[in-house]
Amino acid sequence: MSDKTLPGATSRREFLAGLTAAGGMIASGQAEALTPTPVLDPTRVQGAATSAVGARSPHEALTRLQPPAYKGSISLTPLEGLHGTVTPADLHFERHHGGVPQIDPAQHELLIHGMVDKPLKFSLSELKRFPSVTRTCFIECSGNLYTRATEKSTPQMLCGLTSQSEWTGVALSTLLREVGVKPGASWFLAEGSDAAVLARSIPLAKAWDDALVVYAQNGEAIRPEQGYPMRLLLPGWEGNTNVKWLRRLELSDAPFMTREETSKYTDPLKDDTARLFSVVMDARSVITSPTFPQVLEKGWQEIRGLAWSGRGRIEKVEVSVDGGKKWQTANLQGPVLAKAHTRFTLPWKWDGQPAEISSRATDETGYVQPTMRQLIDVRGPGSQPYHLNSIMSWIVQGDGQVLYSAEPWI
Amino acid sequence: MSDKTLPGATSRREFLAGLTAAGGMIASGQAEALTPTPVLDPTRVQGAATSAVGARSPHEALTRLQPPAYKGSISLTPLEGLHGTVTPADLHFERHHGGVPQIDPAQHELLIHGMVDKPLKFSLSELKRFPSVTRTCFIECSGNLYTRATEKSTPQMLCGLTSQSEWTGVALSTLLREVGVKPGASWFLAEGSDAAVLARSIPLAKAWDDALVVYAQNGEAIRPEQGYPMRLLLPGWEGNTNVKWLRRLELSDAPFMTREETSKYTDPLKDDTARLFSVVMDARSVITSPTFPQVLEKGWQEIRGLAWSGRGRIEKVEVSVDGGKKWQTANLQGPVLAKAHTRFTLPWKWDGQPAEISSRATDETGYVQPTMRQLIDVRGPGSQPYHLNSIMSWIVQGDGQVLYSAEPWI
Repeated sequence: MSDKTLPGATSRREFLAGLTAAGGMIASGQAEALTPTPVLDPTRVQGAATSAVGARSPHEALTRLQPPAYKGSISLTPLEGLHGTVTPADLHFERHHGGVPQIDPAQHELLIHGMVDKPLKFSLSELKRFPSVTRTCFIECSGNLYTRATEKSTPQMLCGLTSQSEWTGVALSTLLREVGVKPGASWFLAEGSDAAVLARSIPLAKAWDDALVVYAQNGEAIRPEQGYPMRLLLPGWEGNTNVKWLRRLELSDAPFMTREETSKYTDPLKDDTARLFSVVMDARSVITSPTFPQVLEKGWQEIRGLAWSGRGRIEKVEVSVDGGKKWQTANLQGPVLAKAHTRFTLPWKWDGQPAEISSRATDETGYVQPTMRQLIDVRGPGSQPYHLNSIMSWIVQGDGQVLYSAEPWI
Repeated sequence: MSDKTLPGATSRREFLAGLTAAGGMIASGQAEALTPTPVLDPTRVQGAATSAVGARSPHEALTRLQPPAYKGSISLTPLEGLHGTVTPADLHFERHHGGVPQIDPAQHELLIHGMVDKPLKFSLSELKRFPSVTRTCFIECSGNLYTRATEKSTPQMLCGLTSQSEWTGVALSTLLREVGVKPGASWFLAEGSDAAVLARSIPLAKAWDDALVVYAQNGEAIRPEQGYPMRLLLPGWEGNTNVKWLRRLELSDAPFMTREETSKYTDPLKDDTARLFSVVMDARSVITSPTFPQVLEKGWQEIRGLAWSGRGRIEKVEVSVDGGKKWQTANLQGPVLAKAHTRFTLPWKWDGQPAEISSRATDETGYVQPTMRQLIDVRGPGSQPYHLNSIMSWIVQGDGQVLYSAEPWI
C-alpha cells in the first residue's frame, strides 16, 4: 500500500518497470496466447485513455450460444453468466425465421390499415414525435426448453431463449386513436419485413391494454436482431408475437390464421384437440447458480435465479434443496415489476452432502409453476414442446459437481 | 404488401434481384461511403445469421464525446441520443485521474483493515459468494456542467457526466460484519488501484446505509472504465467517491484528508470558507429533447428529459415553455426509483412562435432545483464550478432552430 504515485506523474522509469514486469510473466510462460499482457501493479503504469465506445474486459467472454442444428436461426442468452435483471442488448437471445434483415430506417414505414377510419403510414421519425412510454419486461420464446437435455446441460442451453430489456416506444393505443378504429374490429395482423414476412394475429384488446411499438432497447436504438428500426412489444406474450421489423398492422374482425398460427405455435393436447393462440407465458423460474458446470466448495453459497410471469408480478419464489420435500421462500430483488424477470436469491450453507436444488414460482394471480409430470398429464406425451415452464432441478454431488436433473419431455 | 415469400424459400433470382437493386442505388450516388449497401426490399433477401455477440445497426452511431482539452481523462454520455433510463455500458461517461488500468481479476484483492477486529482480503470470486444486492442508480460527476457553454452546446457537452446502470454486488455492511468494526470507527478510506491511487474518506454511516461493492453493471461484469473488477457504489454521492478498481478500505475515527478532498472536490464559498465533503448530488433535471442541434417543425412534439436526486426519489418535474413564467407538471415514467435517473415527458404543440423551454425538479425531501442566480448568490462568483445543478433553458427560434440559453458560471 506504499506505492502511491503523484497524479499524472508516472515516470518513464516506472512505465518501463511495468513493461518489464509484464514481459517477465510472458517469458515465464504464464500468460496465455489470447490474454493481453498482464500488468502486475496497475498503480505503476498510466492507464488507457477514454474511448468513444467502450469494450469489455478481455478477461470476460460472455457469448450467445448458437446451436448448429438451427443453422443460424437461434442464439441463446448466457443466463448463468448474468447478474441482476437486465440483459445486455448484444446478448439478447435471437430467433428468426428468415435471418436478420438489413433495414435503412429512412426507407422503412409502418402501415396501419384495414378496419380503420384513416389508413396511415408512420416513419421512424414520426413515431418518435408521439408520447413515449418506457417499460421493462422480458421476451421469451414459446419453445424455451431444450428437450434433449443431459446432466451436462447449462441454463443457457436449457432455457436461454428469454431476455429482458428496458423498451421505449409508443403505445399502440395512441396510434390506433390516430387512425380511428371501425366498430367491429377485434383482431389485428402484425407483419414483419423480414424474408419470412412473419405475421401473427393479435386480439385488439391487447392493443388497448399494454401493447407498444418500440424503437429503443436499453436506452439505445433497438438492435438489428431485435427488430431494428421498430418491433411490436406485447408484454408477457410469447416471443414470436412481438413481431420484429414491424411494417404492417391490419385491423379485422377475425384472426388471419397465418402460417405461424396454423403450422406452428399451436399446442396439441391429449384429447386430439389443440390450443390455438396460447400466447401468454405462464409463470416460471430458473436457477442460474449453482448449475452445471460449477463445482461447489463447502460452506455458504447464494442460490440465485430468475422468475417471471406473463400474467403480472411474481408473488413468491420457493427454493428446495432436498428434491422438493421442504421449500423455503427466497428473497426477491426489488422493484418487482409486472411481466418482468425478477431476481431471486437465497443464502445456502452446503454441508458436503448430496443435494437436489429446485425453484418454484408463484405469480400474483395465484398460478403456481407446475412439475413436468403435471404438464404431461394435461397435454399428453408427444405433443409439441411449446410452453414448457416446469420446475427444473439441479443435483449437487458429494464432490461438489453440479449436474442438471434432466427430465425430458416425452 | 403483396411480396410475401415462402419461409426459407428465397430463390437465387430473388437474391440477385436484391443485389441488383442495391447496386443500382450505389451507381446513382445515393449511398454514402460508410453506409452498407442498402437492401431496397428486405423481404426479398435472406437475412443475416445469428451472432455470438450482436452489433449496432450501421445507421446508428452514438459515441461518447472526448473533449481534447482533457487529454483522454473525460468522456461524456450522449444524453440526447438515449431513451428511457438505462445507459448502455459502453456509453457510460468516464472520468479518471490516471487512465483506465488493465486488471487481471485473478490478481486483484480487496483489503479491509484499520479499526476492525479481523483484517481480511476478498478476491472477486469470494465476493460473489456473499448475498448479492441489485440496485439501479445514477452516478454523476460533481463537475457536471460545462461552464464555457455557447448557444450551440448539446446536452452531451453540457452535462454528459451522468449515467445510469443496474449495479449488482455485495452490501458493504455485509463485509463490515465479516471483519468486525471496532468501537469508535466513524470513517473509512476507499482507495483505487489505478495509477492515481485515487482515495476518498467516507463517513461510516454511508456504509451501514446503502453502500455496495459492485462487480456487475447492466447484467454483465463491470466495464474496465467503470472499475473492473470491482468498484465502490455510494448511491446519490458524487462520482469520484464511487471509487473504481477498488483495492482497499481502511476504517478510522477521522477522515484521511486525501489529495482529492483537499486540493480538489472542495467548494469555496463567498465568505472565504469552503464546503468539505459536499458529496450528495442535489436534485437536477435536464431536457434531452428538444435541444441543439434540433430544428423543430410546427405541431406536436414531446418534451423529454431526465431528472434525479442524490437524496431520494424525484417527486415532481415542472416544465415551462415561456421562460419560467408558467410551469406545467410533466409525466414521470415509472417505476420512480430513489437516487435514479427518472424520465419525464410532456406533450407540447409548438405554434411556430419563439419559445424558451426549461425544466425544474423537486425531490421527495422538498428540495427544488435552483436557478444559476440562486447558486451564485450562495456560493459567490469565481468559486470552483462543482455541484452546479441549476435550471437549464433552451430557446426555440421562430425558424425552429433550438439553441442553448447559455448562462455561464461567473
